[in-house]
Amino acid sequence: MIRSILLLIVITGLTTAGCITQTEKPITKEIEYDYELTDAQTHARWSRAIEPVLTVPSGSVVKVATQEASAKQLTINSTVEDLGNLSFDPIHPLTGPVYVEGAEPGDVLKVTLHKVEMGDWGWTAIIPGFGFLADEFDEPYLKTFELGKDRKTAKFSEDIEIPLKPFPGVMGVAPDTDEMLSTIPPRANGGNMDDPNMTEGSTIYFPVFVEGALFSIGDAHAAQGHGEVCGTAIEAPMNIIYEVEVIKDGRIITEPQYETDEYYAVTAFAETIDEASKKATRFMIDYLEEEKGMSRNDAYALLSLAGDLKIAEVVDVPHMLVSMHLRKDIFK
Amino acid sequence: MIRSILLLIVITGLTTAGCITQTEKPITKEIEYDYELTDAQTHARWSRAIEPVLTVPSGSVVKVATQEASAKQLTINSTVEDLGNLSFDPIHPLTGPVYVEGAEPGDVLKVTLHKVEMGDWGWTAIIPGFGFLADEFDEPYLKTFELGKDRKTAKFSEDIEIPLKPFPGVMGVAPDTDEMLSTIPPRANGGNMDDPNMTEGSTIYFPVFVEGALFSIGDAHAAQGHGEVCGTAIEAPMNIIYEVEVIKDGRIITEPQYETDEYYAVTAFAETIDEASKKATRFMIDYLEEEKGMSRNDAYALLSLAGDLKIAEVVDVPHMLVSMHLRKDIFK
Repeated sequence: MIRSILLLIVITGLTTAGCITQTEKPITKEIEYDYELTDAQTHARWSRAIEPVLTVPSGSVVKVATQEASAKQLTINSTVEDLGNLSFDPIHPLTGPVYVEGAEPGDVLKVTLHKVEMGDWGWTAIIPGFGFLADEFDEPYLKTFELGKDRKTAKFSEDIEIPLKPFPGVMGVAPDTDEMLSTIPPRANGGNMDDPNMTEGSTIYFPVFVEGALFSIGDAHAAQGHGEVCGTAIEAPMNIIYEVEVIKDGRIITEPQYETDEYYAVTAFAETIDEASKKATRFMIDYLEEEKGMSRNDAYALLSLAGDLKIAEVVDVPHMLVSMHLRKDIFK
Repeated sequence: MIRSILLLIVITGLTTAGCITQTEKPITKEIEYDYELTDAQTHARWSRAIEPVLTVPSGSVVKVATQEASAKQLTINSTVEDLGNLSFDPIHPLTGPVYVEGAEPGDVLKVTLHKVEMGDWGWTAIIPGFGFLADEFDEPYLKTFELGKDRKTAKFSEDIEIPLKPFPGVMGVAPDTDEMLSTIPPRANGGNMDDPNMTEGSTIYFPVFVEGALFSIGDAHAAQGHGEVCGTAIEAPMNIIYEVEVIKDGRIITEPQYETDEYYAVTAFAETIDEASKKATRFMIDYLEEEKGMSRNDAYALLSLAGDLKIAEVVDVPHMLVSMHLRKDIFK
């Protein structure tokens, strides 16, 4: 087991308008990791038949490098002509799978995102035939961006700067099939959820379908709106540090759920946003019934007052992803 | 013209953990208004045939009292048995219409919400046959709440307190028809949009369909999640102060749009969340093309990176409402 120090995070004291700040002494935090995977250790399908590239005990911290979604077919110098030659076959390159010892079908795999660090560049494209308004936008379009781990914004044009909030678009465990499934749609195993809220500091819970769980991650996005309407985000290579833990005898979940300090969230995929929203509402009612001991009527009414349906993505056909968030501070 | 002083808003200095605060001197702001309507000056349909209760010049500030959605059929002491006798006929009681001088079809009515002040009580119900999961929840349910203008939370149970964020569920102008339309679904004239972001400080833009615009407001909500999944929010009487202004020769809008200091937003209604989301995306592309001079391809890509589709409500059948938000600080 390698235990190395990867990063020094520097947080300066907050400067708040209208109040005297504390001394601006940097707070230094070290993130240690146990294992490391390179961006060559990838696969591009979901299947239990894909061999793990690493086996780790529960509780391990793993640092991975991830390729951008095109699997290096595009570069910062690519043009719209290069986009025409893009093959979907190597999309999405996912770093893994990681076999987590002790994970069995019916367990939950808890994945905490300790660090999501941007690489040097990214791209966004309109790909004919793909995207929420595919019938109305049939012209290929490509834009590339200079990024970097300390960048706060990306330059969209002379007049527009987009705030960056990096996160992995794809995270998931292997489905219980030997079929080689496309990574485009999200499913019960997670996958291409494209939820901009699953970022550094979030903890994501996956149902386990096969022994070892076989966790993979990739397709990182430097910035993405809720919806990802044109079909792509700022697609960028990243370094990610995550921790895996097997949870046994816990509450049964059938699709991924997640949380931060502020809220608990469920996700649901379906072929329409309407159906995904209904599923997400049901999953959150289940959560309130099972975890908080509420009646289903009370839970339904509470979610009408305080539960927020949130669209994650509307483009990863045939599956849309919707989450429902419920803030934690309502519970005394 | 009456010009009276309604309210003193007291904002104390912020106390931020970790920094020394300024002297906590109250900041006092007066909100003046020109006209006043009581909660008896209501109607419960959308139609150009409903006579205005007030005529005002553009630029007027109006204070209105609004009834809760049941039109006083329910009280804080009502029981689930009373819910069984609820008539939908007087729903929603809307204060107005207000005829705004100079407003003509093709203009835009700008409505700024200066103050949304809660009344003393509210209710939430599950009404059989109504709600996002109506097929799964067939038992009537009623909960009432003590509120009040200074309350920050409502008590849902011994263990649960819900943060309050009051807003008018219904705002709209008259449609160009003599028909007496139900106020349940939102339409191009606004109406039952149930968008929790249209709150104090927001400015909403309505397309004008008839002379005088005929603006009405009501159905205020003390708290509501995005979705309003059980079909009701905390339904409460309120006092609202708004300002109306007629905009001529501006950009043409076909459905309501709104803004705050932080973002610009478009709304779209449709029979599915999917179709409403597509319309909202198109409306925001139009906005970027017409107001910011962007190409449609650039606008579509920008919204994929920075535009947020947000579900407002999924229960006001047959029309769901979705908004798209775009933060303003991306534009230099």
